Formats: sequence, C-alpha cells, structure tokens
Amino acid sequence: MNILIIGAGAIGSFYGSLLAKGGHHVAVLARSDYEMIKQHGIHIISDTALGHWHFMPAEVIKDQDSLSFEPDVILLCTKVLKSLDRVALIRPFVGSNTAIGLLCNGVDVEDSIQAAFKTHEIISGLAFICVTRTQPGTIWHQAYGHVALGNYPYGLSDKTVLLAEAIERAGVKALTTENIVSARWRKCVWNAVFNPLSVLGGGLNTQEMLVALDPIIRAIMTEVMMIAEGVGHPLDPCILEEQIEGTLKMPPYKTSMLLDYESGHEMEIEAILGNAVRAAQRVGVAHPHLETVYHLMTAKAKRSRENQ
Amino acid sequence: MNILIIGAGAIGSFYGSLLAKGGHHVAVLARSDYEMIKQHGIHIISDTALGHWHFMPAEVIKDQDSLSFEPDVILLCTKVLKSLDRVALIRPFVGSNTAIGLLCNGVDVEDSIQAAFKTHEIISGLAFICVTRTQPGTIWHQAYGHVALGNYPYGLSDKTVLLAEAIERAGVKALTTENIVSARWRKCVWNAVFNPLSVLGGGLNTQEMLVALDPIIRAIMTEVMMIAEGVGHPLDPCILEEQIEGTLKMPPYKTSMLLDYESGHEMEIEAILGNAVRAAQRVGVAHPHLETVYHLMTAKAKRSRENQ
Repeated sequence: MNILIIGAGAIGSFYGSLLAKGGHHVAVLARSDYEMIKQHGIHIISDTALGHWHFMPAEVIKDQDSLSFEPDVILLCTKVLKSLDRVALIRPFVGSNTAIGLLCNGVDVEDSIQAAFKTHEIISGLAFICVTRTQPGTIWHQAYGHVALGNYPYGLSDKTVLLAEAIERAGVKALTTENIVSARWRKCVWNAVFNPLSVLGGGLNTQEMLVALDPIIRAIMTEVMMIAEGVGHPLDPCILEEQIEGTLKMPPYKTSMLLDYESGHEMEIEAILGNAVRAAQRVGVAHPHLETVYHLMTAKAKRSRENQ
Repeated sequence: MNILIIGAGAIGSFYGSLLAKGGHHVAVLARSDYEMIKQHGIHIISDTALGHWHFMPAEVIKDQDSLSFEPDVILLCTKVLKSLDRVALIRPFVGSNTAIGLLCNGVDVEDSIQAAFKTHEIISGLAFICVTRTQPGTIWHQAYGHVALGNYPYGLSDKTVLLAEAIERAGVKALTTENIVSARWRKCVWNAVFNPLSVLGGGLNTQEMLVALDPIIRAIMTEVMMIAEGVGHPLDPCILEEQIEGTLKMPPYKTSMLLDYESGHEMEIEAILGNAVRAAQRVGVAHPHLETVYHLMTAKAKRSRENQ
C-alpha cells in the first residue's frame, strides 16, 4: 500500500519504519525535523532484539507540499492536542479512497476526524511502547512496541489487516480487534491515572505513585472502568489488578505527561482526561476522583503556559 | 491573668501583644527569634486602623527555660505539624490550674492535647487574619484579625471570656462561642479547599482558583459540610455560597499552605485535610474529592522534602 505517515516524532518514525520494512511504500510528512530526515532519513536505535536500523522514506514532505501519490492509508501519529488542528493537517492528502488512521492515546479521539471525513474509512490504533526522539531523525526505542489496530467505530478492514501484517513481518506484535474502542478504554484505565498523578504528585515515577497514591489509583481506575461500561464498553474487572501488578513489575517509569510537563510541552489532557470526563457526564456515571484530577490538571497546564 | 504565649511567629506575636494591651501579664516563649525579642520586643506594623505598636513581653524565654510564674493560660500559637510535639512543648509550663489554649487551624486538633492533660481546661481558638512575620521580632498585619474562642469540647469558661474581653479592649473583635468545634468545621470548609488547591493547581491565588476550579471548590466544600454534619456539627447550608462570595470580594490572596510550600516549609496537611478525611472515614461519609486532594498533597509534601 501507499502510506503517508504524518508526524515524524518517535511514534510516527518507529511505526513508519516498520511498515516500510514490512513491504509498504511509505512517505513521511515531517515538520521540525524535515531537513534532517529529507537528507539522512531516520535512524532507529532499539534496546530490544530488533537492533538498529535505518529508514529512508519513499518521500519526505513538509506542510504545504504535495505528495506524488494518493495514499491508501494516512497514518496520523501526532499527539492529540488542543493546539493542533488534526483535520487541517490531513485534509490536503485525503483522496477518495484514502483510509485515515490514527495512532494515539485517549478516548473519543476519532469522532472529530470521522465528522470531517464522513465517508472515509477510519483506522484507530494504540501503541504500547517506550520510545523517544533523542535528536532530529534519531529515535531511541527502549522497550515494548506492540500495537492494537481496528476500525472505528468497530470492525476490521482489509487495509487494517494489511497494516498489522506488515508490522508483524517487521518483527513487532500487532493485534487486530473488531472493537478498538474497548481497547482505547482499557488503555485509558492506565493513562487517566498514572499520567496526571505523576504531574500532580510533584513529579513521581510509576513506582513512587504506587507507593504514595494507591487508594487514588484504584479509585480513578474504578471510575474509568465504570465510565467505559456506561458508554457500552464493559471491561474485564481483572484489569485493575492486572494493570497495577504490571506497573509494579515495570522499572520506575516517567509518564509521557510528566515528560511533557517538565519540558513545558502541551499535555494530552483533553484526549485522555477531558474526553473521559465528558463521556461520564453524557452517561451519568459518578467520577469524583477523575473530575478532581482533570480540573487540577487543566489549572496546572494553564499556569504552566502562563509561566513560559 | 498570667499568660504564656508559646510560639513567637506572626499569630503568637500579634495576639500576645493584644492580650498585653488588654491588661494581662504576658510572657513569650520564642525559638528562632529569641535573642531579638528578648532585647527589642516585638514591633507590630498594621495596615489597619490599629496602626503600629511595640510589645515588650513581661518575660521572654526559650525552650528549657523556666518561667517565674505559673500561667493561668498557656496560649499555643504554633502551626499543627507532624514534626512538632505540641504536648512536649507545653508540658514544662502546665501548672495544676493552667488552662491550655490553642490558636490554630484545623479540626480535631485538641484531642491529643486533652488526652495528655486530661483534667485541664482546654481553650480552642481560631484566628481570621492576614499577618506575616517579616523579620525576627517584626510582624506585618495586613488585614482582618478577629478571633473565635470557646472551650473544648464545648462551653465557655471565665478564662476564655477574659481572653476575649482583653482582645476586644485592644481594638480587635473576639467572638466567643459555646461550640468552638462547629466553628472549626466552618473554617475548615474554606481551608480544606483553597489551601491544597492553591498548591496542586501549580501556585494559584484565590481569584485564580475561583476561575479555574469552581466545580472542585464546590464539591470539596460540600463534602466537608457533610463530614461536619456526620460528626455532629451541621453547618448552615448558606455558608458555601457565602464563603465563595466572600473570597471573590477579597483581593487575590496566596494561601498559607502555598506560602509554606513555596518556601519549603512543612504544610498543615494533617490538621486541615488528614483529620477531616479521618473524621469522614469514622462516620462513613463519602469524600472522594477531598480524598484525592489529601493523597496528592501528601505525595507532594513527601516529594518536596526529598528535593530539599
């Protein structure tokens, strides 16, 4: 397939390179790293058995540029931020048969895209990975890496399966699901807890949170699970203990929201917390702990912007 | 009366000086400011109609010193902090007829004192004041100043009335109440909200909190009022709106907890939040917003200590 990756950060670079390895024709739209990637491509340095490799995209373009082909799939790999107009970013490249893919965190992150491109296929994906852009065109893959892919609002198309197969051929696990929205809620049970608490607790890693904030962690997880059930995506009750156990076994880990906060970057507050709070309000599920954390994060982000 | 003020910070200096003005024989136990106060007394600079005045205590002592008289009243004016053993601090000066007075924030701050001095009269007091120690022996009184005084767990003794009368003679309003515990809960409705949110929101003043955190402010206030009712101190439902309106009319104000946090001092988390949470648990009142804030503050205080 012809694929356009939008966003040459850690996620876009990593999975774009896997799709190319897996046999697809992959172009990249880069912004800040455009010059470097255009000339030298992207170097991926993995601490896992994948080793190191180099990815030279079939085309490298920047905003306003046109593409030599109509993509079968656009894979949008940016964060979901208030300041970023995702629809405007992808619109110039959407052909009549283009499927639009999203690889991002959060819940209810597809509706605004679906609303703008009503008849287009939407592919929704989650990445479970520790990966960082260390310098322009260089990506450090620390651990994990599997993805979950499915169609929004449900189902599994040929294109989605082709994406997953290519990633698997490149050596990384790619789960496909007919119900990606449930998978988003499942991931949100972790994200809506550890991300904001790491910031609000004064800069805590995962292990420090597990020690200091156990009752709050469990309370917010339970609320997110109730919201998920309320919007029609009941989750296995075991996942609460599983996620806590899994986090206990991970090395101490700084969440992406904490890293963003510490470096003065915009945080994915709305995608992860705001959308969960709005879903709770829509279906009338009590969410007092989550609400507290959401409003505190909003206030903290505002204060952080003012201080810059 | 013979009065010993323990703690020569802003509160102790201000009210000690008023009790002296009002005709009592007032000694002061000072710690860090001992030398300065011993030699020069305390200067009080008020922005209110009270003007400026000088207070030379009848005696100035430090820890381990003895006092030339047995006090009729000890007035403990320290913050209520985990690191401070209040019982040990007052024990050397407690005579058989000494009443023990506490001028501090928080709820359930009297029981440990009452438990240590079972047969002694306990006077409990709240100060509504903006006052700061600007340098050793110098106190800046910015606004307000009235106190509420009563006996713990209830009632109104002659000594309590004498204290109130002296403060009134010195020009400051002193309310007496038979039910000081209710007054503590009423004040806690404000303190348990604005103090922690100012810290967790990233350093917000009162006006910024009212704009950014209105739903959380109301939610926590409501919980504290339900807890107060649960422990037998139902509050007038109007006080929620009254306190919000009152805070809106105040100039933007940094809470004492935020000032303590910013200067790396210990915060009164247990006296204000922890004791309210434990009261809620005791009587089975739901308090999810307060619980979230309490645990986050505990984590943040721990992190703050580690960073010092």
